Amino acid sequence: MVPPRFPRLVIYGVGLLGGSLGMAVRRRAMAGRIVGLGRSLERLERARHLGAIDECHTTPQAALEGADALVLALPPRQIRERLADLAELVPAGAFVTDVGSVKARIVARAEEVLPEHLLFIGSHPMAGSEKSGADHGRSDFYEDHACILTPTERTRPEALELARRFWTALGARVVEIAPERHDQLLAGISHLPHLMAAALLQSLARDFAPPAELARIAGGGLRDLTRIAAADTETWKQIFSENAPAMLAGLDSLEQTLNQWRAALQPASPDLKTLGKLWEEGRETRRQLDGDRAESKD
Amino acid sequence: MVPPRFPRLVIYGVGLLGGSLGMAVRRRAMAGRIVGLGRSLERLERARHLGAIDECHTTPQAALEGADALVLALPPRQIRERLADLAELVPAGAFVTDVGSVKARIVARAEEVLPEHLLFIGSHPMAGSEKSGADHGRSDFYEDHACILTPTERTRPEALELARRFWTALGARVVEIAPERHDQLLAGISHLPHLMAAALLQSLARDFAPPAELARIAGGGLRDLTRIAAADTETWKQIFSENAPAMLAGLDSLEQTLNQWRAALQPASPDLKTLGKLWEEGRETRRQLDGDRAESKD
Repeated sequence: MVPPRFPRLVIYGVGLLGGSLGMAVRRRAMAGRIVGLGRSLERLERARHLGAIDECHTTPQAALEGADALVLALPPRQIRERLADLAELVPAGAFVTDVGSVKARIVARAEEVLPEHLLFIGSHPMAGSEKSGADHGRSDFYEDHACILTPTERTRPEALELARRFWTALGARVVEIAPERHDQLLAGISHLPHLMAAALLQSLARDFAPPAELARIAGGGLRDLTRIAAADTETWKQIFSENAPAMLAGLDSLEQTLNQWRAALQPASPDLKTLGKLWEEGRETRRQLDGDRAESKD
Repeated sequence: MVPPRFPRLVIYGVGLLGGSLGMAVRRRAMAGRIVGLGRSLERLERARHLGAIDECHTTPQAALEGADALVLALPPRQIRERLADLAELVPAGAFVTDVGSVKARIVARAEEVLPEHLLFIGSHPMAGSEKSGADHGRSDFYEDHACILTPTERTRPEALELARRFWTALGARVVEIAPERHDQLLAGISHLPHLMAAALLQSLARDFAPPAELARIAGGGLRDLTRIAAADTETWKQIFSENAPAMLAGLDSLEQTLNQWRAALQPASPDLKTLGKLWEEGRETRRQLDGDRAESKD
């Protein structure tokens, strides 16, 4: 698959994802000019200093003039809210995508407000970190991660084709999933786990012990488990909010499962057999999640 | 602190913890003879082959004859249930401890059935792994981990002193906590997180997607988060059961926290501000859990 080359690629948002994208595109010479667009000139200048972008702009007009590609790398609610304003500014025929972690609402909005001549498709590269900012960016950030594309029946084949070539060239493993299904799956494998990590920490500090006392005895286990709870607040409150229906369905499912555990834990006579069965059910899923990798290791 | 040296140290249970203990004691020459006691001669022979023990016994009588130290390295319910039978077999004045992850019931039972002349104290070395069996044992298994000792007003000072020297010599950082408080804290930092990892996997497989589909897109995040759910079923069902009251209190606390999230996620109008506040609360605890380490790294 031949990597695409864009004479003028605009990246809207130069945080961890946008900054890494600029570095990755530069390393592979996939753009003539990498243009940064954002609110803070200071952060843009920092991203330029780090080699993520060539130009700094705080107004979309100047950034998008002559552009033939635009990647929105903002938190998901902001992506959705900016689309209408950008619609008139992106030159005809340009490739447009985004890296938002929630897709249905963004894709619906894009199909509503973007003109037909733009080659739009939603992307969700599954690379991430609890760190934020271009300072933690890396040119190999997207390598060896899945990148989910969310085409619909309205997606132009050229947009899908460009996105496949773009993300594949950056080292990602491209997968196609419909936007609604994407949001359901991501609620389960990412958004709900993030919420659970936060809720666990909240309950620990509220009802168990002050964090300093926890820190004294906690092993690496709890730290590993809750690392994701250190992620950027602005991004995550927008993810939860944009994916609220799927999150609520996930919380319903979780509540049912936790109620089974609760029933088996009644202290009058804890039900060892059921506790074992419930544990085995999770353990078996875990085994399948690892697939053949675990089998060949152990 | 001078490491203790026991002419005949008996390890009851030669799995991951017992096997590692034997290897660690051997490397530091802390025992004249390391005696393995267990149900399966095959597993005992395997532990001997791995260098964890010198002798294999399937009957307590033979193993304990002439012993001056006994470490119970069985799952916690089994430790509690075996104490009465062992009481008459351990030679006078011997040091007795255990490595169970739940302490109040074990310690109460030990103080009830063990004769006064035995130097008993409960231990909980906070080293662990999702792997099990002596084959995964390592002589540095206990190094750089906390080891919680759970003395009571009935604990003999010599027992506490011996335990401090024993675990310190093995490289652990000794901490003293009362048995009931230990069980509460461990429910929060270890047992509840294990239950949550299992429950998440159960809900994913039940209500989100078959594990194979999850595996196709899941990043390292979900795998890291649920690694603990691969741990040994026999041990974990006993931990949950023995610590049932604290687990139920933890589930109550978690339910309250999750209900706040649920309220903020009402899809008619997700409450961005509250979502951000809830997330920040977990994030702040996470920051404090890392203490100065995170500050000096970032």
